[in-house]
Amino acid sequence: MEIGDWRNKIDELDEQIVKLINQRAEAARAIGELKRTSELPVYEPKREQQVFDHVCRSNPGPLADTELLHVYERIIDVMRTLQRREN
Amino acid sequence: MEIGDWRNKIDELDEQIVKLINQRAEAARAIGELKRTSELPVYEPKREQQVFDHVCRSNPGPLADTELLHVYERIIDVMRTLQRREN
Repeated sequence: MEIGDWRNKIDELDEQIVKLINQRAEAARAIGELKRTSELPVYEPKREQQVFDHVCRSNPGPLADTELLHVYERIIDVMRTLQRREN
Repeated sequence: MEIGDWRNKIDELDEQIVKLINQRAEAARAIGELKRTSELPVYEPKREQQVFDHVCRSNPGPLADTELLHVYERIIDVMRTLQRREN
């Protein structure tokens, strides 16, 4: 495969990743609403640690756990902002 | 659905997201090798802009484009490091 073929492959993967991150945002938004009605805090460090642990356990490579966590820190950051926005 | 149900849903989504980000890394690594043999630079701002544009065009919401780009900046950053590591 040439560079152009790999880039087409990456574009296809990005479409799926974008879709899934948005589905994750829908779920985070629903949780944000439930937290609001239950008066629970948006920031729950214990749950965030569980997410990071689960991500590392699910990691097949070639990315190192630290590299994947680097991405997930941003995902969690964006989701937390989304939950606050809905409050 | 209760918070626990949504969190199970998020865990399932994360497993898929982790898998796809790693597939993306495999493709980026392959491109890194081709760049090396062709003596092309790792950093290609024009291609990175194309990726960001494509991500925004593929965005169904509820995330805003800026939020999605916030995540993608990290993805691209990690992929670039990966390509350098292989060099």
